[in-house]
Amino acid sequence: MRAKIGILTVSDRAYRGVYEDRGGPAIHEYMNEALTNEWEPVAKVVPDELDAIQAALIELVDERDCSLVVTTGGTGPALRDITPEATEAVCGKMMPGFGELMRQVSLQYVPTAILSRQTAGVRGKALIVNLPGKPSAIRDCLDAVMPAIPYCIDLIEGACLTTDERRIVAFRPKA
Amino acid sequence: MRAKIGILTVSDRAYRGVYEDRGGPAIHEYMNEALTNEWEPVAKVVPDELDAIQAALIELVDERDCSLVVTTGGTGPALRDITPEATEAVCGKMMPGFGELMRQVSLQYVPTAILSRQTAGVRGKALIVNLPGKPSAIRDCLDAVMPAIPYCIDLIEGACLTTDERRIVAFRPKA
Amino acid sequence: MRAKIGILTVSDRAYRGVYEDRGGPAIHEYMNEALTNEWEPVAKVVPDELDAIQAALIELVDERDCSLVVTTGGTGPALRDITPEATEAVCGKMMPGFGELMRQVSLQYVPTAILSRQTAGVRGKALIVNLPGKPSAIRDCLDAVMPAIPYCIDLIEGACLTTDERRIVAFRPKA
Repeated sequence: MRAKIGILTVSDRAYRGVYEDRGGPAIHEYMNEALTNEWEPVAKVVPDELDAIQAALIELVDERDCSLVVTTGGTGPALRDITPEATEAVCGKMMPGFGELMRQVSLQYVPTAILSRQTAGVRGKALIVNLPGKPSAIRDCLDAVMPAIPYCIDLIEGACLTTDERRIVAFRPKA
Repeated sequence: MRAKIGILTVSDRAYRGVYEDRGGPAIHEYMNEALTNEWEPVAKVVPDELDAIQAALIELVDERDCSLVVTTGGTGPALRDITPEATEAVCGKMMPGFGELMRQVSLQYVPTAILSRQTAGVRGKALIVNLPGKPSAIRDCLDAVMPAIPYCIDLIEGACLTTDERRIVAFRPKA
Repeated sequence: MRAKIGILTVSDRAYRGVYEDRGGPAIHEYMNEALTNEWEPVAKVVPDELDAIQAALIELVDERDCSLVVTTGGTGPALRDITPEATEAVCGKMMPGFGELMRQVSLQYVPTAILSRQTAGVRGKALIVNLPGKPSAIRDCLDAVMPAIPYCIDLIEGACLTTDERRIVAFRPKA
């Protein structure tokens, strides 16, 4: 099974084209470096609207068969930031450990890391993970959670991800 | 804009006057030391009742135009402790990073820090943050989260807070 | 009051008898080592079904008068893992600090600790705590949260637990 990975940029400005999407490409580049299995990106850009984000997440999981969907943007406290709520609305199970760890790691760089409301959850056979909008913060967060992602996707019966161990050591407990 | 800060003491005993409110004054004193902008406290004392806490939070934000509301008390596991539930009920967005960091900091002092259910959230243009009841724990928690609060309130379009950098270095990322 | 402690094993395989329950006995053994008060275990094994877990938790708290109920199993991301949802459904109050600390401690051993969705909450005069399924992880988690459990149960008016201080130093703040 060729793994599909959804990359969802959530940004009013990127959606209207007044701002270049830098988060989506940063995730694409990261996955290219980290993964050794064959994989296919499915990229989308949506505005900061609850309905649009939910619809995109559902499409990426239910129709496009992504095993992993990574979002960028919309996790702060501002009025339009609504990505975590959209994520929670489409997930059957929430995974609080992802947000906790990503905030903890980001706190090493900036005290405002606690303002990020990023979370993660499972919808069907897909893991959905919220990332920040800023490319450098995206890398810090992915470095923290990526070691646990392949095993998580095994457990929910998604595609098998393998990583370049010089970059990311994916952990799979021995049965 | 002169910043208004709500200070809400939640305590059956303080409300009935059988116990001196020490949490509210500790928050007031802390803000006097930390803030360099002009600000006005709006203090209230309510019993540990869901309706009374919700009504006070709504009044402080919607009618009194507070940009920040800090509560003290009612965050433990006991039957009457209901401040986090009241906070969640009036907030449009929850900010889990505040509670996580405050518990982590308090864990350096007491293993019972995990019993605190304190949280934070946004209602309109105000940030609401739950603090413990004990003055020394209030200071430890505020030291941890205060560096992120001015930027959070910028993002939700509340008043501009500035801090005495000998006390608190407020972080505002460069755009 | 003789303390009753519920030990709930959540596992399809243990329930059908195709797999020996190792989590329940590990919790029993741990409590025998850690506690110095008289206590009585009330052990149950249920399958990974929301209704069965909820019914067992309610019985252990409401009918069997347990002051503490410890679950093992069912906290991962897989389709059948549903223990945290069952716990939340029967609790009047959630205690997020337990899950945060247990994940943080487990992260010292395995990066997949963030996949655990374990939580804790209060139902009436009982504290319910989710633990992992693996005996070694059970011990690591209990070592982390046990110092706070006796005081938590004091606050919710359950039985008085005392610990062997060579094993666990239970913390009770001075009034």
